[in-house]
Amino acid sequence: MSQKALSDLKVIDLTTALSGPFCTMFFADYGAEVIKVEPIHGDQCRTWGPIDEASGESGFFCSINRNKKGVTLNLKSEKGREMLYDLAKDADFFCENFKGGVTKRLQIDYETIRKINPRIIYVSGSGFGQTSPIGHRPCYDTVAQAMGGLLNLTGFKDGEPVKAGPSIADHVSGIYQAVGALIALHHRERTGEGQLVDVAMMDTIFSMLENAIPNYTMDGVIPTRNGNEDASIAPFDVFACKDGYVTIGVGNDPMWARLCRVLGREDLVEDPRYLTNIDRMANYHPGLHALINDWTARYTKQEIEAIMDEANIPCGPVLNVKEAIEHPHTKAREMMVHAHHPTAGDLYFQGVVAKLSETPGRVVAPSPTLGQHNQEVFWLSEEEAARLHEEGVI
Amino acid sequence: MSQKALSDLKVIDLTTALSGPFCTMFFADYGAEVIKVEPIHGDQCRTWGPIDEASGESGFFCSINRNKKGVTLNLKSEKGREMLYDLAKDADFFCENFKGGVTKRLQIDYETIRKINPRIIYVSGSGFGQTSPIGHRPCYDTVAQAMGGLLNLTGFKDGEPVKAGPSIADHVSGIYQAVGALIALHHRERTGEGQLVDVAMMDTIFSMLENAIPNYTMDGVIPTRNGNEDASIAPFDVFACKDGYVTIGVGNDPMWARLCRVLGREDLVEDPRYLTNIDRMANYHPGLHALINDWTARYTKQEIEAIMDEANIPCGPVLNVKEAIEHPHTKAREMMVHAHHPTAGDLYFQGVVAKLSETPGRVVAPSPTLGQHNQEVFWLSEEEAARLHEEGVI
Repeated sequence: MSQKALSDLKVIDLTTALSGPFCTMFFADYGAEVIKVEPIHGDQCRTWGPIDEASGESGFFCSINRNKKGVTLNLKSEKGREMLYDLAKDADFFCENFKGGVTKRLQIDYETIRKINPRIIYVSGSGFGQTSPIGHRPCYDTVAQAMGGLLNLTGFKDGEPVKAGPSIADHVSGIYQAVGALIALHHRERTGEGQLVDVAMMDTIFSMLENAIPNYTMDGVIPTRNGNEDASIAPFDVFACKDGYVTIGVGNDPMWARLCRVLGREDLVEDPRYLTNIDRMANYHPGLHALINDWTARYTKQEIEAIMDEANIPCGPVLNVKEAIEHPHTKAREMMVHAHHPTAGDLYFQGVVAKLSETPGRVVAPSPTLGQHNQEVFWLSEEEAARLHEEGVI
Repeated sequence: MSQKALSDLKVIDLTTALSGPFCTMFFADYGAEVIKVEPIHGDQCRTWGPIDEASGESGFFCSINRNKKGVTLNLKSEKGREMLYDLAKDADFFCENFKGGVTKRLQIDYETIRKINPRIIYVSGSGFGQTSPIGHRPCYDTVAQAMGGLLNLTGFKDGEPVKAGPSIADHVSGIYQAVGALIALHHRERTGEGQLVDVAMMDTIFSMLENAIPNYTMDGVIPTRNGNEDASIAPFDVFACKDGYVTIGVGNDPMWARLCRVLGREDLVEDPRYLTNIDRMANYHPGLHALINDWTARYTKQEIEAIMDEANIPCGPVLNVKEAIEHPHTKAREMMVHAHHPTAGDLYFQGVVAKLSETPGRVVAPSPTLGQHNQEVFWLSEEEAARLHEEGVI
């Protein structure tokens, strides 16, 4: 047993798909009561693959909605809206990621909810935020990656731009929503005042462009994509090996000397073509790159990982999902966890990233089935619940 | 003027390079007193390009250290360590991102610091965390992207894996560190108890693999990279246009009908090859892809953006840094901000992502010059400061 950092918090969670639910997952993982409010037909992503054949449950949905309670509400009915207002009266966070304008139409926008509960922290995640001239537009992860500037910087020099495989904009926006909510919570603890937290996926991506920004604002340079090569260090790249790829980075001269020894080419330590990082940058293509690639081609990922570990040279095998899951690091960090789902059975998903020594996050419950906690959350008798279901309210 | 959400917090910031400083930047942006403690020769990234020629200041360093105070301390000297302990006595957060083992050697590890201040929240960011069998290894962003599983999922189907251009692992790990610290802060407010927050870059990346995890754990499928194409929706891809690339995503049948009209091909709405998403997936290559690509090739990014906006079809131009900075969205969201640096002059960098209505984050001060706040923070007379500098302590 361990302490729950957020056990005093009640979260009304109207979010769907990925970005908002990823935010509220953190609150649930650290012990908040997160009440996932779904339309009567369920969050759209309950139908997204992979689907468990026997139960019809979505692996996608289950993975980011663990630890939450689930209720259904028809927000287009007056009764449904009233029931939501009731829930909001003593809630701490109210989270939504509707497209711009929808919350107003449903009468659940911040101005409405704050009147019911002025202490509430209203967390809004969307593609472009509440104050953008393009806030009305639909946005997918790839759109945010494209417009935020990341896509143009990803890929090989002479090739097409390519998106980061997983939905980085959705995920990181969710993490930023959590940061904003927790900062607002601290303010509320000091003043009693609630507020609106507004996070846009495009801003999220833009915030991570790093050196591309000062390179442009200070030097007028518009950076382009550069594959896996570092812009200012060599060798620092991805190399092909027997069974895949490895990344190797050599940050300074002593490290370069160690790499030469590993390659069996101690003669190169004093070679004027490779003496300093500047020399190595200048002579990386084709000579130095080919030299390393020829060596890596003779070994497997695991062999190279062990050799570089021994030589104290930064190196990482390019792991596929199975290999990442099975890596000793992932096991030691408890980054794969398990929950038993009432219909889908044993489910496995990623663990908690921020490890807190006294209040560790935990996965203690699976995602809810549709409307699973209706009685408990709305405090309804079986008959009342049945009637409200008949009436299309829950 | 506006309220500062975190003005009651004092942060001792020993972080260097990117990941840790990105975390403490959030605290500074929302009003905490962040004291950046640098070695006497300065944070290593003060020398990283782009460098302002006149002043020698690093654009990289300035962009993520705005709003912070700067002091120098030789932690290898007894006096320097004592001065750090003094600072820590009434600090709230103590942040570091040294490689495994270094804090112990410097006698500034969590066990030591908590004895001085049991209420302290000690935030530790690193490549592999405090409990990993490979925690001793050096880690760069690319290594974490590789081992966390993102690199293998990024790039084109038959091409090499490629990293996300900017340092995603560094940035997102910094944001997770902030989440962990703020959750620990809430716990401390309820109990008075401090704790250790431990975030690994590899875990950070692993946490965002999304469907790749349930695809493997539920169905045994090891996903591979898929370029810019969505795994389950078509058309949803990046297309070449007159002056670059655009991403267009068509999520349902009514949207498909609208796209057909935009393409001037209403005849395709009823075409059995493209009737449903399943049909469009099956017949995406080569027919449907070529059809859209032929159309986009006749327009510029901006033209397509406007047309798709009008048609209510999710679309984003692939913007380069200059274009992203100049987009009306970026301006409206105040995502580029400005600070006047005493030696480097006017500097521009990314604004605050999480927009809080009552306690907005602000950029009100540039990054500190080396040791700029030594007197103020350590409460030293000019003579004392000069003497400690002579002695190699500050």
